[in-house]
Amino acid sequence: MSCISDMGKLLRKSEKQLSIASTEDKNLALKKVIESIENNRKNILESNEADIAIAKENNMKPSLIDRLKLDDEKIDSIIESIHTVIKLQDPIWKSDKVWTLENGLTISKMNVPLGVIGIVYESRPNVTVDAFTLALKSGNCIMLRGSSTAINSNKALVKAIKEGLANSPISEDVVQFIEDPNRDHVLEMLRANEYIDLIIPRGGKDLISFVVKNATVPTIETGVGNCHIFIDESGDLNKALDIVINAKTQRPGVCNACETLLVHKNIAENFLPLLYDKIKDIVEIRGCSKTRSIISMKEAVESDWQEEYLDYILAIKVVEDLNEAIDHIGKYGSKHSESIITENLSNSRMFLRKVDAAAVYVNSSTRFTDGGEFGFGAEMGISTQKIHARGPIGLEQLVSNKYLIIGNGQIRR
Amino acid sequence: MSCISDMGKLLRKSEKQLSIASTEDKNLALKKVIESIENNRKNILESNEADIAIAKENNMKPSLIDRLKLDDEKIDSIIESIHTVIKLQDPIWKSDKVWTLENGLTISKMNVPLGVIGIVYESRPNVTVDAFTLALKSGNCIMLRGSSTAINSNKALVKAIKEGLANSPISEDVVQFIEDPNRDHVLEMLRANEYIDLIIPRGGKDLISFVVKNATVPTIETGVGNCHIFIDESGDLNKALDIVINAKTQRPGVCNACETLLVHKNIAENFLPLLYDKIKDIVEIRGCSKTRSIISMKEAVESDWQEEYLDYILAIKVVEDLNEAIDHIGKYGSKHSESIITENLSNSRMFLRKVDAAAVYVNSSTRFTDGGEFGFGAEMGISTQKIHARGPIGLEQLVSNKYLIIGNGQIRR
Repeated sequence: MSCISDMGKLLRKSEKQLSIASTEDKNLALKKVIESIENNRKNILESNEADIAIAKENNMKPSLIDRLKLDDEKIDSIIESIHTVIKLQDPIWKSDKVWTLENGLTISKMNVPLGVIGIVYESRPNVTVDAFTLALKSGNCIMLRGSSTAINSNKALVKAIKEGLANSPISEDVVQFIEDPNRDHVLEMLRANEYIDLIIPRGGKDLISFVVKNATVPTIETGVGNCHIFIDESGDLNKALDIVINAKTQRPGVCNACETLLVHKNIAENFLPLLYDKIKDIVEIRGCSKTRSIISMKEAVESDWQEEYLDYILAIKVVEDLNEAIDHIGKYGSKHSESIITENLSNSRMFLRKVDAAAVYVNSSTRFTDGGEFGFGAEMGISTQKIHARGPIGLEQLVSNKYLIIGNGQIRR
Repeated sequence: MSCISDMGKLLRKSEKQLSIASTEDKNLALKKVIESIENNRKNILESNEADIAIAKENNMKPSLIDRLKLDDEKIDSIIESIHTVIKLQDPIWKSDKVWTLENGLTISKMNVPLGVIGIVYESRPNVTVDAFTLALKSGNCIMLRGSSTAINSNKALVKAIKEGLANSPISEDVVQFIEDPNRDHVLEMLRANEYIDLIIPRGGKDLISFVVKNATVPTIETGVGNCHIFIDESGDLNKALDIVINAKTQRPGVCNACETLLVHKNIAENFLPLLYDKIKDIVEIRGCSKTRSIISMKEAVESDWQEEYLDYILAIKVVEDLNEAIDHIGKYGSKHSESIITENLSNSRMFLRKVDAAAVYVNSSTRFTDGGEFGFGAEMGISTQKIHARGPIGLEQLVSNKYLIIGNGQIRR
């Protein structure tokens, strides 16, 4: 018997209890987990220091170390996220749609849990708690497979979660964490249709593509964000400056950061020098030939349009018009978050309709594509696929449905 | 270049037009298709006769021939389904959720088409038209791969569809039909992530499992229906009789027909002889030992509890109580449609909560799990998986979403 099937059996058993647990019991369990994280704070931080030390030895990129790092403030924010989820409405056993057929049958489309969710994720240890919290509140059991780079932090967090659950009405078996770093377990997990209803990969391009290629369990593709901002001819240059700087530099290591800037040719000469002055000291800029005819910089090559830098690097292309911008985004974008800076209503409308992405913005930073910012509480990831859920995956996205049909003897004619 | 990638390119190209087509244009296209099916009626019926002749030569089961057969009445009903879809509200570019964040950003969760849908289906030729109609109205392009047993009928129907589109504002390229029976095309289709956003298999167990095992494109499992009716101790025996007879015999070749009957031990002696008298001449009954101690019949073996007969055969098991019924359904059911016949409120509530299926009924035939019956117009299949859509897949289930976020310079703090 493998580790995955052992865990799977425990999860399937716990699922029956958790799927019909009351909101009161689920919230109580989350409160106990908060207490337990507080009690384990020292152990969690020490475990994280061990991970950081190893990461530095291995020369991990600073933006990735930023993702891995926990401190008191980040633990406070993890706890705050649980408080937020406790306050959110339970998505289960409610219905937006109830109707009655001519024959008298009344149909209610009720939200029910998905069952067992598997998540395969890299680096950020807060994902361990966010994913568990969202799963529990939505009545779902969860199998966690974190990155080996965060193994000590994750083990400490899971220990805290399980200790909390042990003092609550919900079984600690609802969460299972794969400690063994052997990658065979991931493959087994991806094909455990008997035990897992949905797999969410959360991490870089390679992880996501590995999961999508190998999973027979349904998956949600998340996260790769090659996001663009297009400064239209009519764009307000002050808004544009603030937005580009925010979207590129406020936290470059995340998926909703801006990677490529598209600038309308008629404002490029005004805008680019302003931008250059503001960011040249912190951001490496790579430009197309037109950009470089205005400001001297490194040349952007084909791969620059494709890459999610996750770093202080920005590619810039001067475009003929809105259509070229939309085409460029269609060709290179990852359907995550795309923004237009414009004062022209028709152009904003066309951008909103024609750009195919989870989140399409007008006059805003792309950095808002996030479950917390959207008001969903924490998030399980950001889906860039079209089925099941697209955009931030919060509580309301972690449900399935069941049609209840109540009659008094109806038969089909 | 393969047939799939040629078709895929045409579909991706057409997708841009169709995804933003007006409801007016889409409805006009469907009206033209109706005209064209009328004009092609003779050719369609003759082509179907050819398929039926081959099926009879190959000794196809009568219940499957019933699925394959077209006649004037069935063509009328195909046309009626298109009329129904024309009248349904366009699901695209509308929103049930619009909200404004504290910072002033307004977010609208808009319905958008999925893009390109692939459907792999067996036998019933009406699926060709139903699938196309639902796809078009929901702004989706479609790649069709029907059964070789219905190849002549399907070709005639697709010809009619394309002739109709040619006289409409929508390109006839939005629908692509794979004529070549080579099964390699199916495999290629299942892995055409570049060209297809969602694959729906519609057919028997083997087809569905082949698709789920081999697809890298997201799929929706549909259709296998091992459906149960449980007659509780308090059940009204007249309702129970009507419902069981209806669910078993009104159309046994479909997925929402009843396959196993569970009877509470305290009413078995009253109920089973009544049922036996009514159905013994048309239905083969296979019973557990307790059933056979009341009425002499063939013995039900383990495989009987597992099988979707799709035929005039019914398995019967006498159970101790509601819990045993729920456990039996949990073990053998395919999460399709399950019904309890009871006058006891607590028992109905427990059945509704604990039975995990797309449709759970109280005092009703299972035969209503159907897009048409639910009021969805036609249907693309009945999903028995939990992600994206569960139950009948109609227009509202063929959408994805896009978050539109409108600001005036917002940046993230």
